[in-house]
Amino acid sequence: MEQELIARFREIVGAKHAITDQALISPYLLEERGLFHGKTRLLLRPSSCAEVSSIMQLASKTRTPIVPQGGNTGLVGGQQPDEKGGSILLSMERLNKIRVMNLEGNFVVVEAGVILRDLQKKVGELGRFFPLSLASEGSCQIGGNLSSNAGGAAVLAYGNVRDLCLGLEVVLPDGRILDDLRFVKKDNTGYDLKNLFIGAEGTLGVITAAVLKIFPKIKGKAVALVGLYSLAKALEFLSLAQEYGGGMLTSFELMGNLSLQMALDYKMCEKSPFQQKHEWYVLMNISSLQGNDEALSILNIILEEALKNTVIEDAVVAQSLNQQDFFWQLRESISSAQKLAGGSIKHDIAVPPASIPDFIAEAALIVEDIAPGARVVCFGHMGDGNLHYNVTQPVGVDTTAFLQLWSKMNHRIHSLVMDYKGTFSAEHGIGQLKREELRSFKSSVALDIMQEIKKILDPLGIMNPGKVL
Amino acid sequence: MEQELIARFREIVGAKHAITDQALISPYLLEERGLFHGKTRLLLRPSSCAEVSSIMQLASKTRTPIVPQGGNTGLVGGQQPDEKGGSILLSMERLNKIRVMNLEGNFVVVEAGVILRDLQKKVGELGRFFPLSLASEGSCQIGGNLSSNAGGAAVLAYGNVRDLCLGLEVVLPDGRILDDLRFVKKDNTGYDLKNLFIGAEGTLGVITAAVLKIFPKIKGKAVALVGLYSLAKALEFLSLAQEYGGGMLTSFELMGNLSLQMALDYKMCEKSPFQQKHEWYVLMNISSLQGNDEALSILNIILEEALKNTVIEDAVVAQSLNQQDFFWQLRESISSAQKLAGGSIKHDIAVPPASIPDFIAEAALIVEDIAPGARVVCFGHMGDGNLHYNVTQPVGVDTTAFLQLWSKMNHRIHSLVMDYKGTFSAEHGIGQLKREELRSFKSSVALDIMQEIKKILDPLGIMNPGKVL
Repeated sequence: MEQELIARFREIVGAKHAITDQALISPYLLEERGLFHGKTRLLLRPSSCAEVSSIMQLASKTRTPIVPQGGNTGLVGGQQPDEKGGSILLSMERLNKIRVMNLEGNFVVVEAGVILRDLQKKVGELGRFFPLSLASEGSCQIGGNLSSNAGGAAVLAYGNVRDLCLGLEVVLPDGRILDDLRFVKKDNTGYDLKNLFIGAEGTLGVITAAVLKIFPKIKGKAVALVGLYSLAKALEFLSLAQEYGGGMLTSFELMGNLSLQMALDYKMCEKSPFQQKHEWYVLMNISSLQGNDEALSILNIILEEALKNTVIEDAVVAQSLNQQDFFWQLRESISSAQKLAGGSIKHDIAVPPASIPDFIAEAALIVEDIAPGARVVCFGHMGDGNLHYNVTQPVGVDTTAFLQLWSKMNHRIHSLVMDYKGTFSAEHGIGQLKREELRSFKSSVALDIMQEIKKILDPLGIMNPGKVL
Repeated sequence: MEQELIARFREIVGAKHAITDQALISPYLLEERGLFHGKTRLLLRPSSCAEVSSIMQLASKTRTPIVPQGGNTGLVGGQQPDEKGGSILLSMERLNKIRVMNLEGNFVVVEAGVILRDLQKKVGELGRFFPLSLASEGSCQIGGNLSSNAGGAAVLAYGNVRDLCLGLEVVLPDGRILDDLRFVKKDNTGYDLKNLFIGAEGTLGVITAAVLKIFPKIKGKAVALVGLYSLAKALEFLSLAQEYGGGMLTSFELMGNLSLQMALDYKMCEKSPFQQKHEWYVLMNISSLQGNDEALSILNIILEEALKNTVIEDAVVAQSLNQQDFFWQLRESISSAQKLAGGSIKHDIAVPPASIPDFIAEAALIVEDIAPGARVVCFGHMGDGNLHYNVTQPVGVDTTAFLQLWSKMNHRIHSLVMDYKGTFSAEHGIGQLKREELRSFKSSVALDIMQEIKKILDPLGIMNPGKVL
């Protein structure tokens, strides 16, 4: 990249925000899992949609690739430039204004660089609730959430971020601004363009702002940890919990006995709340707009009905906020415990909930075939059919050799998932990591349409190249 | 259209389902409001996706325009061929199978020709609930619902049909089949294509099947009719009802005094349940998964809180199913009463709920300017900001002369709506009726992208020509 070109981009955002010092750039190139090692000579930090538009106009004119980046928390390399270093990194962090808070309309208008937790807090202070909730919420940004169609813990009741978005402002690869910031839930005026940009991982344009739905505040919560006879019974229990809980059932997390045991073995948490071991566990939340009493009463109705009909084996209701936290800590410490148990091959998959028992039985055969003795640590958002199907190395084998089975294992597990009309990327997207899988598993008709859409919106191929397609 | 071409299409669906007899075709060409007078020489009634694919292949080869039609209940002429008669009408009524019912996964897979009420019933028999509900539900079809992104009475709690759809099967204009029938709520594998076809009014392809979400059964309902001091108070009341009702608040319908009065004046229903007149009324439903007791208890909490804080003036809670029906009859008879009061110019608009008071005040000035003495009959889904802003002729003037003000009135009201970041077609779409409005009010960037998308999917322009764009 020539100095003259850098100077022209610098003019748009100001010297302070056109960064070439590699020491300052390096945090933006750090990728948590160490899978990607992108390079760039220039980091731009625009502060407005107009600046982003000017950047894209110049990028178009000069055919300079642009890689948009939010909080840099993505897990598939979508926010990282390639190793050649010819792309400009576009950080959205300074577009961080909340433009509108509309309580009666239950919506907010926020810029792409707003950090998720900041939005949750601001909305909460006004007596409303923004349900998107992710492990990375302290640093991830709304623009990144939208570009990757983030899921998280509240999808069961509130949907993915796609379902929370009413409208977008997008800068197209040629610098044109698509202003589709509608403030209404109903709008049937032509093709739905916003959903094209949501989940496109920055390959079709740069999302600069969005209209997002907000919700009434949750006033009470009840949490239970439930021991189950079998996976089939877990399914029955899910149906029952939904029948009585409806939208108040905000979490329904499945954990295999081995998941819980690992958390306990590695002292990630204290002793199990159960006297007796169970094959499977469910951690569930009931949320109420009225208060804790109502949440508890609904939870008790569900548990009593389930115990009466031997749908569940045992249940422990959290008796305090501390105990609620402890139950969730059990669930959330599984990943860390798994790290201590050796290398793991991971899958971000979903199948229809009803297919989970069959899927798990068949997947176990694949695992045993490829890596005899490997340990399946399976847990996840059962209500969405979204499982973290993780395969931890057998005790005592070489970790590097085991991890070399990653692609082979992924591919066979993903093939099985597709047989169930499920997905090989439920939450994290494609980025750089799953491009091959996309080519293998997506229908050629869908791939063709995607390619054609990419071509009309980004004919020069400068928008986050090498990602998704 | 030559006989030879008709014969080739006939071969695909069989003689019985390739109809040229105008007497048999005429019901399909009937358009309820008499605004459109389409013609065709051939009606095809395929029974499978494969047949639709063969039809589109042949249509492509021979450049024959195809107009897909569901239950023929659309209000903007989207399902009607033009008057030249060169298009083939493609009725989806024989693609009427429910392919899959999956209760644990809370989804069904249905073909495009399934009638909405049939689906509601089948799902209900299995102890689940499909929330889409429209005045035309006895004859409208799922494919048409999806193609027009239908809204209706349950949007407040469940969203538009777009929000209820997990995946689609679509035949493209060239006959290729896009099989995107995913059975999972989370799927982040490339661009979201399904939302492109939902709401495209059959101009990008023919939807042949869909995966739709289903929900736990509603076990109880409470209904109240509420008298309000002012529109500003109606807003306050909406916030309060959402705060305590959340997802259980399934309807929140606004009615102006004149709307109710017309229904009473024309004896569409018996006397008002109120002693005293109010400026505005709200009809609200609380739905419960537990039963009537819970619904009533939540409704009472809301009403007591609102009365205590003088947010509302008066409220009547329906004491029986009969009275619930009577309250809804009041609401639903407004349109019929309005017909008896003379000609009306109608608007299917939405603005953010918080802007409703300002919008109504400003719109009244426009009405008075264009048609002094005209009567505003305003009612609708206030929770969604979606109003039927209908303008009934002044008493005693010539109806035809008044109706000639339609475009002028529409255009100025729609301009006002756009100032509020609202929409000039909240529910009904564009079809033939609102193409000019689309050109006036949609941004040129959005229109350009739509045109380009149309071009890549339907380069020959054979797919429902003359609609939307």
